[in-house]
Amino acid sequence: MPSEFDVIQRYFSRLTDTREDVEVGIGDDCALLRVSQNSRLAVSIDTLVEGIHFARDTDPLLLGHKSLAVGLSDLAAAGATPCWATLALTLPDIDEHWLEAFSRGFSLLARSTGVQLVGGDTTRGPLSITVQVHGQICDGSMMLRSGASAGDLVYVTGTLGDAALGLLVRRNIHAGDDVETLFAALDQPQPRLAESACIRELATSCIDISDGLSSDLGHILQASGVGATLFQDSLPLSRPVEDYVASTDDWSVVLGGGDDYELCFTLPAALQQDMDRLRDEMPACFSRIGKIDPEPGLRLVDHAGVSRTIGAKGYDHFG
Amino acid sequence: MPSEFDVIQRYFSRLTDTREDVEVGIGDDCALLRVSQNSRLAVSIDTLVEGIHFARDTDPLLLGHKSLAVGLSDLAAAGATPCWATLALTLPDIDEHWLEAFSRGFSLLARSTGVQLVGGDTTRGPLSITVQVHGQICDGSMMLRSGASAGDLVYVTGTLGDAALGLLVRRNIHAGDDVETLFAALDQPQPRLAESACIRELATSCIDISDGLSSDLGHILQASGVGATLFQDSLPLSRPVEDYVASTDDWSVVLGGGDDYELCFTLPAALQQDMDRLRDEMPACFSRIGKIDPEPGLRLVDHAGVSRTIGAKGYDHFG
Repeated sequence: MPSEFDVIQRYFSRLTDTREDVEVGIGDDCALLRVSQNSRLAVSIDTLVEGIHFARDTDPLLLGHKSLAVGLSDLAAAGATPCWATLALTLPDIDEHWLEAFSRGFSLLARSTGVQLVGGDTTRGPLSITVQVHGQICDGSMMLRSGASAGDLVYVTGTLGDAALGLLVRRNIHAGDDVETLFAALDQPQPRLAESACIRELATSCIDISDGLSSDLGHILQASGVGATLFQDSLPLSRPVEDYVASTDDWSVVLGGGDDYELCFTLPAALQQDMDRLRDEMPACFSRIGKIDPEPGLRLVDHAGVSRTIGAKGYDHFG
Repeated sequence: MPSEFDVIQRYFSRLTDTREDVEVGIGDDCALLRVSQNSRLAVSIDTLVEGIHFARDTDPLLLGHKSLAVGLSDLAAAGATPCWATLALTLPDIDEHWLEAFSRGFSLLARSTGVQLVGGDTTRGPLSITVQVHGQICDGSMMLRSGASAGDLVYVTGTLGDAALGLLVRRNIHAGDDVETLFAALDQPQPRLAESACIRELATSCIDISDGLSSDLGHILQASGVGATLFQDSLPLSRPVEDYVASTDDWSVVLGGGDDYELCFTLPAALQQDMDRLRDEMPACFSRIGKIDPEPGLRLVDHAGVSRTIGAKGYDHFG
């Protein structure tokens, strides 16, 4: 059985491409990183725990991808360009097949997004993966949760509820067609980095939808001291989610489903034309779903024009 | 039972003092941090797992201290000034007494070292604590493991083996006096930040002794392509460790005992006078224990002048 040092050397020391701004990477007490002048450092840390965030039999390739993707999604939400990651891996034992696949999944996403793994820690214990991502943001262009104003428009990227419906399918609670799309959303979320780069000069607020639309938009509303109205007919749904909602009238996967990793953002109504132009260029990417109100609370207007208040039904780990 | 968001708000959002260079702290997708011009960012991540790194009944106040201390020790070894930390906490349930004590232990050390907690993640699962620390280093003054040269002198801070002997006492393998000193070393390691600041302009290499002297000095020797000779009579021992070694002739707690969090460093023989002056000012802090040789390997010379080769008996999590 290889030692801790062998594991680091074999699977992680050459996992990603080398960045010019990494002065010391894996293998010393600290990594040493050069932050660009006129940039700020953006950091976010996330943990995935076996049995809570993923099942025991989850493909380690997908897990390697997802463990990095969730952090990159946070960077996208802030408008940061990803640079470096650290990985704290707690393993019940050394399973070389698992490590090979996990590191490959991590590596593929890291290379495609320009991220270098610069440090980590391997310990023994119940399987758990903590990744910290580090990005850079030009001075003053961070998207916060607190910038939305009454009159702003509310947008989301992609489609809503795919991951949540995927989970229902996987747990045999729902049977549907086109499950591959749903499983891809659940297992291989694509952090919306390109979309973030398009909107970061325009948006007044942004968050990634990891706990569900109503919960995460709720954070924007609370931080900004405003409310919002969403239009049910405008919510972007994939075909399988559309079919599911049509047959069940259960909107909870759309409004409260976690793990979507899409962006929800607001921008001034005056910028709608700029956004429409972007939307024409990237038609699958951006949907206008509502508007920001001065009154607190989140309201949903259905196809008949009836408005109802919806609560924050997001995922709470201790709820 | 409070929700995840309540937990963050209640125990962590005001845990530490506010630094002027934190533009966004806890509560958004990312923290936003300003790195000083002419400085590099130093980062290190460490995980403590229940049952591996600490027992189930460990005082959470001590755990809060230690979970931050181990990372600060890495910053000290690199010569970095601590700035910011993130905390990924996996908890089996919400125990408010535990959280209150844990956050107090973390907070006391953070405040005394100028560290602000800027982000985190709370998840449900087997108890595990991951802390990433962020420091800054003026350009060019990082202490690496790779800078030692033949002829350099080898120093350590503090005393050796206290934590390892403390563990033997706690496990009832050894009974001794003055156990408080030993338990303090084991439970409340003091990161050697002041000592690091004194030596970072002088040292050619440095590491913190978390896996045992022979193992960690071994990393310096390997990275620098050299060997070393240590003098047994020069190894700094506390009274309880001295008594233990005298009665058992078991040097493994001194040479291979983990969790010491002292610094081991090398410096050119020409700087010995500077170091002697420092040692006079801080007599408990620095001991010269050996010298760097051109031949690979680590040798120990006993009081009779007999030399023997010693292996890297450090702690390996999967050994």
